[in-house]
Amino acid sequence: MAESLIAASVPERADAAVQRDAKLRHVVESQQFTVPLLMELFDRTAGMERVVARGGSLDFRSKIMATLFYAPSTRTRFSFEAAMHRLGGSVLSTEHAHAFSSAVEGEQLEDTIRIIGGYCDVIVLRPVEEGGAKRAAQVSPVPLINAGDGDGGQHPTQALLDLYTIFRERPLNGLRVAIIGELDRGRTARSLAYLLAKFDRVKLFFVSPPELRMRRDILDYLDEHDIDYEIEQEIDRVIGEVDVVYQTRIHPDRASNAEMVRRYAIDSSVLQRMKSDALILHPLPRTVELDRSVDDDPRAMYFRQARNGLFVRMALLTMLLE
Amino acid sequence: MAESLIAASVPERADAAVQRDAKLRHVVESQQFTVPLLMELFDRTAGMERVVARGGSLDFRSKIMATLFYAPSTRTRFSFEAAMHRLGGSVLSTEHAHAFSSAVEGEQLEDTIRIIGGYCDVIVLRPVEEGGAKRAAQVSPVPLINAGDGDGGQHPTQALLDLYTIFRERPLNGLRVAIIGELDRGRTARSLAYLLAKFDRVKLFFVSPPELRMRRDILDYLDEHDIDYEIEQEIDRVIGEVDVVYQTRIHPDRASNAEMVRRYAIDSSVLQRMKSDALILHPLPRTVELDRSVDDDPRAMYFRQARNGLFVRMALLTMLLE
Amino acid sequence: MAESLIAASVPERADAAVQRDAKLRHVVESQQFTVPLLMELFDRTAGMERVVARGGSLDFRSKIMATLFYAPSTRTRFSFEAAMHRLGGSVLSTEHAHAFSSAVEGEQLEDTIRIIGGYCDVIVLRPVEEGGAKRAAQVSPVPLINAGDGDGGQHPTQALLDLYTIFRERPLNGLRVAIIGELDRGRTARSLAYLLAKFDRVKLFFVSPPELRMRRDILDYLDEHDIDYEIEQEIDRVIGEVDVVYQTRIHPDRASNAEMVRRYAIDSSVLQRMKSDALILHPLPRTVELDRSVDDDPRAMYFRQARNGLFVRMALLTMLLE
Repeated sequence: MAESLIAASVPERADAAVQRDAKLRHVVESQQFTVPLLMELFDRTAGMERVVARGGSLDFRSKIMATLFYAPSTRTRFSFEAAMHRLGGSVLSTEHAHAFSSAVEGEQLEDTIRIIGGYCDVIVLRPVEEGGAKRAAQVSPVPLINAGDGDGGQHPTQALLDLYTIFRERPLNGLRVAIIGELDRGRTARSLAYLLAKFDRVKLFFVSPPELRMRRDILDYLDEHDIDYEIEQEIDRVIGEVDVVYQTRIHPDRASNAEMVRRYAIDSSVLQRMKSDALILHPLPRTVELDRSVDDDPRAMYFRQARNGLFVRMALLTMLLE
Repeated sequence: MAESLIAASVPERADAAVQRDAKLRHVVESQQFTVPLLMELFDRTAGMERVVARGGSLDFRSKIMATLFYAPSTRTRFSFEAAMHRLGGSVLSTEHAHAFSSAVEGEQLEDTIRIIGGYCDVIVLRPVEEGGAKRAAQVSPVPLINAGDGDGGQHPTQALLDLYTIFRERPLNGLRVAIIGELDRGRTARSLAYLLAKFDRVKLFFVSPPELRMRRDILDYLDEHDIDYEIEQEIDRVIGEVDVVYQTRIHPDRASNAEMVRRYAIDSSVLQRMKSDALILHPLPRTVELDRSVDDDPRAMYFRQARNGLFVRMALLTMLLE
Repeated sequence: MAESLIAASVPERADAAVQRDAKLRHVVESQQFTVPLLMELFDRTAGMERVVARGGSLDFRSKIMATLFYAPSTRTRFSFEAAMHRLGGSVLSTEHAHAFSSAVEGEQLEDTIRIIGGYCDVIVLRPVEEGGAKRAAQVSPVPLINAGDGDGGQHPTQALLDLYTIFRERPLNGLRVAIIGELDRGRTARSLAYLLAKFDRVKLFFVSPPELRMRRDILDYLDEHDIDYEIEQEIDRVIGEVDVVYQTRIHPDRASNAEMVRRYAIDSSVLQRMKSDALILHPLPRTVELDRSVDDDPRAMYFRQARNGLFVRMALLTMLLE
């Protein structure tokens, strides 16, 4: 499934369900964003920061967003819903549609999207299955945003806010980025890798235990697009030379032992070996892989990063609803 | 319980809890709607279609609706909530109050309605128990709408949107309607039968396996009101001569075998035997009883029907809140 | 834990996390309210009653409230959310964050509050753990309201609405109040006792089975503040001489037998022994400890009390958001 998705989604394709005359219609996967589209999005995002700082809201008062979460995620859902409210719009919300659904999602997803698309102006979907967002976008009568599909799928708005957080602080061309943790199933790590590959002279370091290393589909994509990358097993080999450290969680079920998780953790001793102007990002929630002693360091960007999610989602919604 | 509800609810009664001076106060069961009230509702509904098409909203900005769902139904809930948002109002929402309630609903329903009625302007209730909506309406300080009560209870707003969908396309007098599926427990089939019985020269065909046939209370009601009906076990005996096919789901637990469910299914071969201008309705969600090959047929009305739910509920809310 | 909370929270302290220059910043526990602050709140509350009676709303249109309930409570949540909607604002809502959270709350609460505080203007929190609201307030970037923490913690807004309900009907100085039921774990009973202790010549009667009696921390607090109180085991010894009866539920798991619960119940025979102008309050929900035959008695204030929750919470929100 993942392979066919990738094959079908090189940036040059003209998939009517996803892009129509360069106007953004659905947000399904990071690769669909071209650099000009990213720059338009980031320009709007900066505008949204100013709107919120002024305590204002825009006039999307007659617009309705439906958040359809088959798997729960309070933070991601709140971020989208806050974005819609800050725009002046309304929200229909499910906290955990899967637990409450009488029918199996697989059979019903398309029907549900058609019906709910008749009630609202934009759908934010977190499906259970990898590929669910793409299937849903193909039948949706209104714009649809993928809010994270499946364990090995994508989470494109997370990648957009991650990239915006870096963009606000550093030039994206020539960037050296370490992506650390459970990379084979990490939706956010995967989606970010696709996005970074759009920029010139980027170098990526994938740091993980060998059994959790980045999947072949992403590496093939980077090869095709001439992006330089290295596969590493030790933080120490890269930590001193990167501009951005993108830390992710290793799920306890996937770690062979607690010692393994600790080997990839960032704490005050790792901090000392990082560049003085490096940026530390994490999609949160965290466990032990990102020590609380890091929070007060000026390089820690992760709470700022979470808040940027609000602004990026506001900007995306304006692009889809206008 | 069902019998006493029916006995108490012939259209001529003057139940203060349900109707007050012909003004609509609560929406508990389909029978309470007279033909003039239905025509007023449908006239308003057509107006709501125009409001939404213009991208407008009405000024119910200071009004609050509470949706109290003791059993989950994302689609029905979203339809009501979208209606309130399109009117400009606000919503308090529960996705699954039963799962979360510390106390047994039976003891608490009346207290809950009294308390929540102090916070909002209209309550949309899906109780677990048959008859729960009627009990709630008797104590509610604000208008209350039954959003489906119990397995064998009613779902009056579904019946209203079903009827509106037919009304938009055909004269209701003289209509020949096949109602197919699990009829003994089908809330929507039951509520629709009550409504159709209001019109002249209507003929109903109840098509189901013998063990799932329409209950005696509805048949007695039709006898009392001189409505012509037939009980059938085979789709083929009626499919060629009806103006409307109202298909419903047979719950897997109630089907003796998969073959039985397939015997009542509508697919492309059944389509060929239907009148060329027949209408196919289904309350959704569906499983195998309505094949996806039907979706592109111009006679398929079910997605339109779902969308009409938005307009009918907007119209109902304006009648209750004004 | 409880002891240290109390020790840290005598009214004279200057805890920056809770009070800042006498401006209300967070609402964590009843003790933080001084009498002048209570009088300002009650004055605003009366104003809110008038706003709602006029069908109006205030202009908090660009403000967002997040309700973060780790334990479900439909009524309390709806009361807060209705208050925000009546003020014209928007709401982000969780019905049951604990059931849906992938991570353990204990580790994550502070991070969650920091992140969600970046999306909204005020947080309403019902944590699972006693003391959770205080921990959350210490890191929250926006005002935070405790909506009930833990079994033996506090529920300050409930106490505020309880006190407002009495204040509307009677002078608070010199009041004689019986607090009845499961007092050791009763959040509402505990929070109300703290508030009543602010007033002159108040006398409290704690009536409960010996094994459920009021905890030592509250009694010590009353001793320190020279508040007169008595510990009783029989309703009859106090029911005829109090101005207010504050009845609470004995949880079935905590009652040694059904007979015990009935001994503390209020029914029509107990009513006859009460003063003719006494007030009967109950935080609801109720079971057998408050018989339905009491509902029509003019002394029954509990539905009025629940509705006052709307006005008190509106007033509190204006104090926090202005």
